[in-house]
Amino acid sequence: MALLTDLYQLTMAYGYWKAGRHNDQAVFHLFFRKNPFSSGYTIACGLEYAIDYLKNLSFTQQDVDYLAGLNGNDGKALFEKGFLDYLKELRFTCDIDAVPEGTVVFPQQPLVRVTGSLIEAQLIETPLLNMINFQSLIATKASRMYLAAEGKNVLEFGLRRAQGIDGSLAASRAAYIGGCDATSNVLAGRLFDIPVKGTHAHSWVMSFDDELEAFNAYAEAMPNNCIFLVDTYDTTEGVKKAIEAGKILRKKGYEMLGIRLDSGDLAYLSIKARKLLDDAGFENAQIVASNDLDEHIISSLKAQDAKIDVWGIGTKLVTSYDQPALGGVYKLAALKDENGNWKYKIKLSEQAIKISNPGILQTRRFFENGLAVADMIFDQENFDSQSMIIIDPLDGTRQKKIGDTTSFRDLLVPIFRKGKLIYQMPNIKETKKFVISELDTLHRSIKRFTNPHQYPVGLDKKLYDLKTELILNLRHLKD
Amino acid sequence: MALLTDLYQLTMAYGYWKAGRHNDQAVFHLFFRKNPFSSGYTIACGLEYAIDYLKNLSFTQQDVDYLAGLNGNDGKALFEKGFLDYLKELRFTCDIDAVPEGTVVFPQQPLVRVTGSLIEAQLIETPLLNMINFQSLIATKASRMYLAAEGKNVLEFGLRRAQGIDGSLAASRAAYIGGCDATSNVLAGRLFDIPVKGTHAHSWVMSFDDELEAFNAYAEAMPNNCIFLVDTYDTTEGVKKAIEAGKILRKKGYEMLGIRLDSGDLAYLSIKARKLLDDAGFENAQIVASNDLDEHIISSLKAQDAKIDVWGIGTKLVTSYDQPALGGVYKLAALKDENGNWKYKIKLSEQAIKISNPGILQTRRFFENGLAVADMIFDQENFDSQSMIIIDPLDGTRQKKIGDTTSFRDLLVPIFRKGKLIYQMPNIKETKKFVISELDTLHRSIKRFTNPHQYPVGLDKKLYDLKTELILNLRHLKD
Repeated sequence: MALLTDLYQLTMAYGYWKAGRHNDQAVFHLFFRKNPFSSGYTIACGLEYAIDYLKNLSFTQQDVDYLAGLNGNDGKALFEKGFLDYLKELRFTCDIDAVPEGTVVFPQQPLVRVTGSLIEAQLIETPLLNMINFQSLIATKASRMYLAAEGKNVLEFGLRRAQGIDGSLAASRAAYIGGCDATSNVLAGRLFDIPVKGTHAHSWVMSFDDELEAFNAYAEAMPNNCIFLVDTYDTTEGVKKAIEAGKILRKKGYEMLGIRLDSGDLAYLSIKARKLLDDAGFENAQIVASNDLDEHIISSLKAQDAKIDVWGIGTKLVTSYDQPALGGVYKLAALKDENGNWKYKIKLSEQAIKISNPGILQTRRFFENGLAVADMIFDQENFDSQSMIIIDPLDGTRQKKIGDTTSFRDLLVPIFRKGKLIYQMPNIKETKKFVISELDTLHRSIKRFTNPHQYPVGLDKKLYDLKTELILNLRHLKD
Repeated sequence: MALLTDLYQLTMAYGYWKAGRHNDQAVFHLFFRKNPFSSGYTIACGLEYAIDYLKNLSFTQQDVDYLAGLNGNDGKALFEKGFLDYLKELRFTCDIDAVPEGTVVFPQQPLVRVTGSLIEAQLIETPLLNMINFQSLIATKASRMYLAAEGKNVLEFGLRRAQGIDGSLAASRAAYIGGCDATSNVLAGRLFDIPVKGTHAHSWVMSFDDELEAFNAYAEAMPNNCIFLVDTYDTTEGVKKAIEAGKILRKKGYEMLGIRLDSGDLAYLSIKARKLLDDAGFENAQIVASNDLDEHIISSLKAQDAKIDVWGIGTKLVTSYDQPALGGVYKLAALKDENGNWKYKIKLSEQAIKISNPGILQTRRFFENGLAVADMIFDQENFDSQSMIIIDPLDGTRQKKIGDTTSFRDLLVPIFRKGKLIYQMPNIKETKKFVISELDTLHRSIKRFTNPHQYPVGLDKKLYDLKTELILNLRHLKD
């Protein structure tokens, strides 16, 4: 997996090595600039993948042989042998701090902070971004489905439309963490200890001459897992046949779990199906709905009093259909000089939002009565802990004084020290619970889908001043 | 990988096994209903992944142990031991026909046809869809970038924003097949034999006190791979410094490959940079552009006479940003009865587009003067090869008589026979060339991005009549 990176990380690594700078100490932050889906918040996810990758980071002989075969525009090798020998011996030795999986995060805040040799910190940029961008995106999307469904019974069915094999597995994992109750993906179930769900498809019904015969045969085989898919031919007729099959099942001492609707007007059909089921004495039979659902359709169906108990969500969740990428970036923020002093670094841009934050950053979240009220991004090396003013990094005139709360939490926690994992990963069920507790700290106005309240996140005044000075210096340099 | 499927495939498999029907012979087709991106065509891709998966399909003891632990709503096991023992012995024995990777395909046409035992054909549904949906989507997207760039120099840089690890690897593969020249993803380069490209990032420049110093240090290390990223601070100043570094490089006998622009107005900046480079005697230095490009932005930049030689494309390509999923489906089309006769199967829907096609299907493509003129989907078991009328499956009044051309090609080719791979996979470079030859068979009106001409695809008249009869029969049954 060491080659799972952009070539330019390796060519830069070579440049640092050639210049004897590969062990220079650097600080990089992984962060994003905008919440996805115009959401008011984001759920951090993917750290466990990153930890697995970092623990096992090393170049095999095969990797190195491959690199030895790459040539430049003169037809000669890109990398010299000494460097490839060096790569073979390279082991991960950085410090990593990160927000635990499931943490609510906002733009500009470091999700991961890497402190260590320039060469290692650079090599791991691309895989860290790949893992954390995608899983954070999906966990956030799933949390919105969870909120739309009012906290219950969201199932993830996306494997067939997911982006690649791991696009499905990582999505199943992140979706479960973010709020789904189960997945259809059996391998994800086994690998990540996620509940799996599934009953039958249209093809089961089509493989019989008659729909009722199909339901009865399914019930015969698996009486303890009966959700009948009722829309292969005609939904209302299908519900009636499910009821007939349910009655036979009941005589044998089993209870039909419910029915599934996979097409048509889900509001109209679910209300009709509910009545048919109730009238026949199947008040506890659940109605599962699927067919291109997302948080907006769930909300709309709820507003129409659709009688849907369980939401099966595929494509729109696992591909994060309305925004299929989170634009996380990874920026150099400080570099130690020959005297061992940190020199702060910044990337300029015409757009203020694209100017990175310098320093060795941490985020402090303040609480009042259990609700998060503001986040302060500060530089650990230059911080007055009494400081209570935060400044919008995009608009210095927007300042906020944090009240006299003493309740706060610093979001980044130590994960690796000198390459050694010192963090005890919670299990996936703990992480899932943590997401719910995190969402509970957000005022509901931050969680609504349309024009959510913008949660206050700012730079500590000292950091703001330092950043402004760096920008002015750099802009001055070019005159 | 046998568990990389939806649970309902396994519960149905169990149902078939319990009913003694698991060896019933079935035909399933994998197809999609709409081209992605309002494109006029789609490029089939992903077959090599599917072949690897099918060749190695078997349930391990670990898989079976996991399944043994799954319970139904009565707390008892879902699957009985006899079935799990059966699964452990299961090997893939189906016939598979598929269109070769790189084939131009259209809605309703089978990309894959599976003939074999109901149980196996059902189990492989989900992974086949996962692999072929995604790679076809990306290959199609890449082909559009290739067309927009007029066939030259499109690079794929998407790893950091891709959906999961394999979301990046499979995307790099499909993007290369579809029209990219190289990837930044080193692992994809090694695994799939794709050229890799990369030079340096903003962090390289930021790690030095001065931009020129950074360029010179890079050139010192890697004089045969110099594309300088010029927009860390100020783009025009950056170009001037790249020229200075290029002059030093030239004195040492090397040539600067070019510069890269990653922000700002790419039309304006590329024209300005081109002039600076030309005036300084660097007429051959290439200008690489990146920053959220897609086929529409490439076309627009070309229309503005932007001086861009190489297009670096990330997020918009590897996540297929404007449509992140292809809605491929997999439908039962025929089942053998106890007498060994095929019974044709169909799924009804209120929407004509969602009614599946019955039979054992093949697609015949007709050509005139090297251009594809029409595709006929026919049932191999009921086909009059003299038949020259195709009927739009969505509108029976739209019929087309194919001229007296005798030039045609049947798209599905044999891949597996009784579980044995009999297809010789072309290598990736051959597949890439095949895509170009396929695109050359399409009239340019089919390839344009806005309102492309709709290529004629229809059902053979016999198939159309058979389908209509089945629909009428099924709709009659419910009265």
